Amino acid sequence: MTKLLRSWVESANSAQCPFPLNNLPYGVFIVNGQPAQCCVAIGDQALNLAAMELDGALSFDRTLVTGSWNAFMALGPSAWAELRGLLIEMLAEGGRTELSRYLIPLSDIKLVMPFAVTEYTDFYAGRNHAFNVGTMFRGPENALPPNWLHIPIGYNGRASSVVVSGTPVVRPHGQLKGPNDELPRFAPSARFDIELEMGAIVGTASNGPISVTEAFENIFGYVLLNDWSARDIQAWEYQPLGPFQAKATATTISPWIVTAAALEPFRVSTPEREKPLLDYLAEPAPMLYDIDLEVTMAPEGKSETVISRTNYREMYYSAAQQLAHHTTSGCPMRVGDLLGSGTISGATKESRGSLLELSWGGKEPLTLDTGETRSFIEDGDTLTLRGAAKGDGYSIGFGECSGKLVPARNL
Amino acid sequence: MTKLLRSWVESANSAQCPFPLNNLPYGVFIVNGQPAQCCVAIGDQALNLAAMELDGALSFDRTLVTGSWNAFMALGPSAWAELRGLLIEMLAEGGRTELSRYLIPLSDIKLVMPFAVTEYTDFYAGRNHAFNVGTMFRGPENALPPNWLHIPIGYNGRASSVVVSGTPVVRPHGQLKGPNDELPRFAPSARFDIELEMGAIVGTASNGPISVTEAFENIFGYVLLNDWSARDIQAWEYQPLGPFQAKATATTISPWIVTAAALEPFRVSTPEREKPLLDYLAEPAPMLYDIDLEVTMAPEGKSETVISRTNYREMYYSAAQQLAHHTTSGCPMRVGDLLGSGTISGATKESRGSLLELSWGGKEPLTLDTGETRSFIEDGDTLTLRGAAKGDGYSIGFGECSGKLVPARNL
Repeated sequence: MTKLLRSWVESANSAQCPFPLNNLPYGVFIVNGQPAQCCVAIGDQALNLAAMELDGALSFDRTLVTGSWNAFMALGPSAWAELRGLLIEMLAEGGRTELSRYLIPLSDIKLVMPFAVTEYTDFYAGRNHAFNVGTMFRGPENALPPNWLHIPIGYNGRASSVVVSGTPVVRPHGQLKGPNDELPRFAPSARFDIELEMGAIVGTASNGPISVTEAFENIFGYVLLNDWSARDIQAWEYQPLGPFQAKATATTISPWIVTAAALEPFRVSTPEREKPLLDYLAEPAPMLYDIDLEVTMAPEGKSETVISRTNYREMYYSAAQQLAHHTTSGCPMRVGDLLGSGTISGATKESRGSLLELSWGGKEPLTLDTGETRSFIEDGDTLTLRGAAKGDGYSIGFGECSGKLVPARNL
Repeated sequence: MTKLLRSWVESANSAQCPFPLNNLPYGVFIVNGQPAQCCVAIGDQALNLAAMELDGALSFDRTLVTGSWNAFMALGPSAWAELRGLLIEMLAEGGRTELSRYLIPLSDIKLVMPFAVTEYTDFYAGRNHAFNVGTMFRGPENALPPNWLHIPIGYNGRASSVVVSGTPVVRPHGQLKGPNDELPRFAPSARFDIELEMGAIVGTASNGPISVTEAFENIFGYVLLNDWSARDIQAWEYQPLGPFQAKATATTISPWIVTAAALEPFRVSTPEREKPLLDYLAEPAPMLYDIDLEVTMAPEGKSETVISRTNYREMYYSAAQQLAHHTTSGCPMRVGDLLGSGTISGATKESRGSLLELSWGGKEPLTLDTGETRSFIEDGDTLTLRGAAKGDGYSIGFGECSGKLVPARNL
């Protein structure tokens, strides 16, 4: 495993800093009402790449002045490597300290969506999550669907509902029908939940089936992703065509794109196969990542409680396997497509990635450090995901993926 | 019902012409390698609206020179009414014949995608189709899912896979597992099918729940839509999260956007409710349309056979109801969102909208006029949808929605 790369930006050299020189995650910020600017995080600062390209200090076909990373991603992997190489050179100890005029404290900027989500697909690739949810919905003997160990199952979500960390989430209305209700009713969801996921961002378009290796190379980077889910809407609507409005209220992502390049030292294999995979899904090398994850919940005006700790390596399928499967039918993939991993739950109760599992469908409410109990999310609660890949004396952080639930509309 | 509006473009005045002055559908064409141009069909001609806006003969914020109808749609309903009003005035008998210099014969142009599909949602709103498919998959007693009469059920599809009429469709690969197979295999689909649908195009964005009336007003127009479906991939993958790769190979649309304004005389109510709908889905006025539809199949180099005739009014839910339901959770809708109606099947065998139903899962193959039999689509077959709303001495045509299946890739 590589060690901390030291930067002349001193705050980047601490073992606790989420944004050392090894990381260099890409974001987009606004400040003082100016247009959105592409930037990279280093220590407690953002380096304004848009301003650098305008000044000629960087030259990437003016993609860095577009207020989004899509155009840069479309330049392809050699440009990705070139920019990362330049930034490491510029920001390394002994590098170009005169660039400090492009630094802005992170505390002074507002981060917005780092890229335009072209389409959004959500998978269901966590073995423990699938088993837990399946047990609650269908009993333990039918918990895992027959196709689950063969297919990285997924469904298409709504790109229009993806928002950046910090955006409030409005409790949704929907059709609800409990098992004992005679008729459905239209009301605010009473079982609103989170799903702890990682999101993979497609940086290279494809038009036809691609291999797992090609898929791995086409992924530009990763974000934390909270796939907010209305469990009561889901239970009534999801058969036979899958989740729809239950998942369309919002999906929150963290504001920094952590590149695949930064995560390279943290590659791990997917868990041992319980059934052999078809050749087109075989993973020729480790393509999952060792990333520690946690979820916190904070009632309105109260301190937060860690409600789950797990790791991305729990997934049964990697994003590369998911992306390769996504293209089997010939489905074109485009720059900015976002792939949710599926809920990441560990084997133990404390490592489950949704309240549905943590409270076992509401039967075992959680007790927070503040004394409150929760089965699902209450108005005013803030839910936050955090993640970090831990290196030797440094860590690769993702920033926060946070959202506060606000009361339902008056309809 | 209104009568034929006569135009100085003589070919538009025939009762057989799909594009009389009453219609004025919007398309985008390319000719001689020039950039894509917005146009309107009149008789056997296209009026080049891009050239007219460039010359100052029309003025819509230069949206007509963008090579797509999205920017114009975003101007909103008053602009939609204004352009239609101007075109009717200009093209009516006694109107501005000097505009003939902007006419190009339809036979000389190539029509491309009329708009950029932002996201694509496919519904399942045909009562007969849902019953037929449900019977085959789950038996007649469980045919209609319990939520079906309460919710316009839908799932998110893949916008990237939507193509314009005339685009060849490559037979997809996928995971297949027959009921008697021990393990799945990766192979070309052997049960590739069509779905006869209408597509509704969202022309006005929304951000939160909207009423059925608002939804009706937000729909700019309609196209014919063929939701190609790999039934064998679908059968193995679709539980529990719904269809995914089975529907991602291609969805073909007709090249002309027939506006809601043109269809106004053909509004009809949805069929009588079998169970009362929740208030938010109630239809305050007729919002479905009386549109005759047919499907033909032509083996390679052979003539076509009509394999189905039905009508859009068979749908249990209108596009307005579907769009309103789509927004209940707060899901933002954007200009260019495309909503597939779901397969339109009539009550009789000859009016079914998919081969799955027409051949009853392959058990009752069709015999074409050419003598060939078909259960599903064979390589080289061309499938074509056509549609028309029939007025008093005129009809509102959609153009063809056609695609030829070409052999699977060598993977």
